[in-house]
Amino acid sequence: MTLSTADIDLALRLADAAGAAIRPYFRAENGLELKEDHSPVTRADREAEAAMRRLIEAERSGDGIVGEEYGVREGVTGRRWVLDPIDGTRSFTAGRAIFGTLIALVEDGWPVLGIIDQPIQRERWLGVAGRPTTLNGKPVRTRACAQLEGAIVATTSPHLFGDGDVPHYMTLVAAASGGHARQGPVYGGDCYNYGLLASGFLDVVCESGLQLYDFAALVPVVEGAGGRMCDWNGDPLTADAQGHVLAIGDPARTDDVLEALHSPAHGHGDGHGHGH
Amino acid sequence: MTLSTADIDLALRLADAAGAAIRPYFRAENGLELKEDHSPVTRADREAEAAMRRLIEAERSGDGIVGEEYGVREGVTGRRWVLDPIDGTRSFTAGRAIFGTLIALVEDGWPVLGIIDQPIQRERWLGVAGRPTTLNGKPVRTRACAQLEGAIVATTSPHLFGDGDVPHYMTLVAAASGGHARQGPVYGGDCYNYGLLASGFLDVVCESGLQLYDFAALVPVVEGAGGRMCDWNGDPLTADAQGHVLAIGDPARTDDVLEALHSPAHGHGDGHGHGH
Repeated sequence: MTLSTADIDLALRLADAAGAAIRPYFRAENGLELKEDHSPVTRADREAEAAMRRLIEAERSGDGIVGEEYGVREGVTGRRWVLDPIDGTRSFTAGRAIFGTLIALVEDGWPVLGIIDQPIQRERWLGVAGRPTTLNGKPVRTRACAQLEGAIVATTSPHLFGDGDVPHYMTLVAAASGGHARQGPVYGGDCYNYGLLASGFLDVVCESGLQLYDFAALVPVVEGAGGRMCDWNGDPLTADAQGHVLAIGDPARTDDVLEALHSPAHGHGDGHGHGH
Repeated sequence: MTLSTADIDLALRLADAAGAAIRPYFRAENGLELKEDHSPVTRADREAEAAMRRLIEAERSGDGIVGEEYGVREGVTGRRWVLDPIDGTRSFTAGRAIFGTLIALVEDGWPVLGIIDQPIQRERWLGVAGRPTTLNGKPVRTRACAQLEGAIVATTSPHLFGDGDVPHYMTLVAAASGGHARQGPVYGGDCYNYGLLASGFLDVVCESGLQLYDFAALVPVVEGAGGRMCDWNGDPLTADAQGHVLAIGDPARTDDVLEALHSPAHGHGDGHGHGH
């Protein structure tokens, strides 16, 4: 089944509706609370997701919905809209305009449309399977990366890795930075990093613990810009993926990234000159 | 000696000149190179500092200058302009508009004027000793923070701490987050975090390894907004400070922050309910 113009139009209107709900709460009283897992939620998250769900329910009553705040509504069409009203709520509450609204359309378990929308800076990445990714309507491409050493790696927070993940992550960091702290990863950014990778400003994003609503929208955006999205084993990110997410701007570096992630902790560092 | 209107006017024109030099290189070819310590530098850094130095040399030939890129020029007036054309070059090269130009005027070792300027989002924090800090001309205030647990802590990158610093930093993180990863620190941001703290969106910024040109401008901005800037021992940040920097939005939390930083690693965590 292929996407229609009406599907894309609806997705764009979902992003418009979310942005309109979010903007009044940026750098303003937002009713911040903590959820059971101690992740933050605000009125902006709730109202943005509610606005998107209302539109979908009105226009696509048979489609399923998976949302971060209001959970799953089963559908009958084999299509599901996967919504994260604010990916990066902590950044949002800190007044930083590097969070985003994530919207994906998943068909038979595979994301065929994705939007990363930054409502304050009004930057919108749109990825549609089989088409070039755009930022505010203009096509974007990932950049070439001739070797892993020197690549810019991004991740939101080292505290979000599971214990077993950290040694793997650290060998990737060592390989990319050559062991130099000032060439280390760029932190913060949440979904915004994947948009920047699609636009050719970052080389690798490495995260773990992501939910379907955190990564479904990223896949069409990154892949439509020429990059590769996969899990830490190099396997495709389907709805069943376990939340270990890699985005690689230059697919030619995929084996290098996977090898670095799975090297023993002493496998990197010795071979690089760290003295300076 | 008090600041004159002409001093403030010059500082604002320095920020204008730096921004004009930087903007054309944002998300564009910027001639990125690595310095000896492997920190990045671009034509934007160099041209912005050169533009600021030209203005100072033309109008204040007797003042000293300390700049990140072009070093120290000794003066004869007891005044020094301390310049960091791009604090957060790594974020700048990644296309994130959360870096800043830092400009300080230091008199007899004490920063009496500071600017944090974000030239892409056109946000400018101005701090002047004895006056309220402003963001784009409007006064801003830090926010109250009733207790350390639940405070938002920000820092740019955990890799920038020295080895001996990490255990101290981690006890502060544990105290503020209550041990919950999703309540952990906000990463990335460089100088921009201090502006957000001055505006009341963050509670604590904790960093180490900062140079004079990294922190001199922050002191008048944070203190003029009602916050406290000090080193990790609670001592004032003079030109001789060793680069362990704390910004605390609510000065009533200063003792709690210092105590958490200097607790043994097992001193936090046991007392908090981590189960959920």
